[in-house]
Amino acid sequence: MIQEFPYIYTLDLLGTLVFAISGYLTAADKKFDLFGAAVISLVTALGGGTIRDMLIGSHPVGWMINANYLYAVLAGIGISILFKRHIERLRRTLFLFDSIGIAIFTIVGLQKTLGYNVSPFIAAIMGTTSAVFGGVVRDILSGEVPLIFRKEVYATACFVGGLFYLFLCWLGMGTGWAASITVLIIISIRILAVRFKWSLPRIG
Amino acid sequence: MIQEFPYIYTLDLLGTLVFAISGYLTAADKKFDLFGAAVISLVTALGGGTIRDMLIGSHPVGWMINANYLYAVLAGIGISILFKRHIERLRRTLFLFDSIGIAIFTIVGLQKTLGYNVSPFIAAIMGTTSAVFGGVVRDILSGEVPLIFRKEVYATACFVGGLFYLFLCWLGMGTGWAASITVLIIISIRILAVRFKWSLPRIG
Amino acid sequence: MIQEFPYIYTLDLLGTLVFAISGYLTAADKKFDLFGAAVISLVTALGGGTIRDMLIGSHPVGWMINANYLYAVLAGIGISILFKRHIERLRRTLFLFDSIGIAIFTIVGLQKTLGYNVSPFIAAIMGTTSAVFGGVVRDILSGEVPLIFRKEVYATACFVGGLFYLFLCWLGMGTGWAASITVLIIISIRILAVRFKWSLPRIG
Repeated sequence: MIQEFPYIYTLDLLGTLVFAISGYLTAADKKFDLFGAAVISLVTALGGGTIRDMLIGSHPVGWMINANYLYAVLAGIGISILFKRHIERLRRTLFLFDSIGIAIFTIVGLQKTLGYNVSPFIAAIMGTTSAVFGGVVRDILSGEVPLIFRKEVYATACFVGGLFYLFLCWLGMGTGWAASITVLIIISIRILAVRFKWSLPRIG
Repeated sequence: MIQEFPYIYTLDLLGTLVFAISGYLTAADKKFDLFGAAVISLVTALGGGTIRDMLIGSHPVGWMINANYLYAVLAGIGISILFKRHIERLRRTLFLFDSIGIAIFTIVGLQKTLGYNVSPFIAAIMGTTSAVFGGVVRDILSGEVPLIFRKEVYATACFVGGLFYLFLCWLGMGTGWAASITVLIIISIRILAVRFKWSLPRIG
Repeated sequence: MIQEFPYIYTLDLLGTLVFAISGYLTAADKKFDLFGAAVISLVTALGGGTIRDMLIGSHPVGWMINANYLYAVLAGIGISILFKRHIERLRRTLFLFDSIGIAIFTIVGLQKTLGYNVSPFIAAIMGTTSAVFGGVVRDILSGEVPLIFRKEVYATACFVGGLFYLFLCWLGMGTGWAASITVLIIISIRILAVRFKWSLPRIG
């Protein structure tokens, strides 16, 4: 259980909060009403893990059992409402938290999936799914083609990080250490990718 | 089980039928073919409860086990085909049935979720999900941004009604009475909201 | 289990591979990057069966347990990358394999669903879902209104074939024979429908 690793758990909740803010900002761009914004915040923050849980068969899905995730989303919505003007200026800080968020979501999702009797490769796919599909559902509900299909190296950083985490565990490293190192690697790839405009080859 | 409350069960099937008609009309606006219309009717009528069942882990999902829901959808499609011209003129009646539908779906969904070991607040979210996500999937499949993100107080009426229902039960009222009162409240909020153009604050 | 019928199993994997190619070509039309193309290939090939498994409650969903389906998708992506130019010229061959694919997916999906204590009619719906919803999710993720709502007789061929398969089994025919005949019928309907421009009545 994730609760056994207090600092990963804390970061997981923090990532959820930041994802909720990102959802709220998208809804604001679209001029949705308050309810629409709350739904978009919820699916952005919890959608990836929800899809993962439905695929592996973990029912009721995670945020229904542990209310802290819902509180993290509500906190994200509250912060967005109160500090909307300032948040726009904090995009750089948000970007950092968002990178922490996807890194943590990847590891947590991968680790949870491993408990469901699937191969490590599938678990890496599920880790990536946990990290990026909240954003995919956000984009679809907002009437946009999902960003991740065109954007800078993003999901790829999660997937590569996930494989690296599995490699570290396979070498015999403890999960706490492996997770910490992997999170740093995913964040680094993401930051370097944006800084140097790395991108995957466009096909077609 | 819902079958123990015959009049709620009847209204639930009636709501399903009306939602199927609403799906068919959307498909007609889009000039889909007959198959497309049948799919849109199905997901509009059964989509909300299906998503609820997948999230809480009730498998196979409800309409697979109790065929009456499928028959209600087929009846809705049949009525749409036979009386299409007249239905257009009955929009006001349809609106009333649609309001009854979301009210019933909210209570039924909430009550079912409570049996899955989650908190009442989550159950209220799931009740609202049952009521409104059929329409969300309908809109996405039709290439539209979901209506509920911009529309008059709609999902909000369901959610407020759900919380009120929980409050009545907590006071010790029987579920039959509490459900009846809540349904009337949700319908009233909806009608008043449309009549007086209530809306949630737009953000952004 | 499908593995007991080696030639159906082989065709199922072949259908998966062809669906992955179809997903890749869609992503190429949209100028997605390599990651986006991989996701679209995955959901096109595995999405229908995934939705079926989530609805009936088969967890973890099929492709997580049997890695061969994932390998089939990866092979489809690899073939697309290597032979993209030639594939464009092979559209007619692809169309044939795609028709085989939906026919096989229908029977396999129907047969699997029957094991979950639902009525045969629901199983026919689930067979059709297995065959066509991968394409639906592909279209939604690509920002298109799903093709099947406007296209030539396609899902209808699956559904009719599914009902026919149930009829043959009800007559006492062995599943191997019934499946073979049904696959030929679905493929024939599809080819004739395209050849003679059959279509369902457009509504609205």
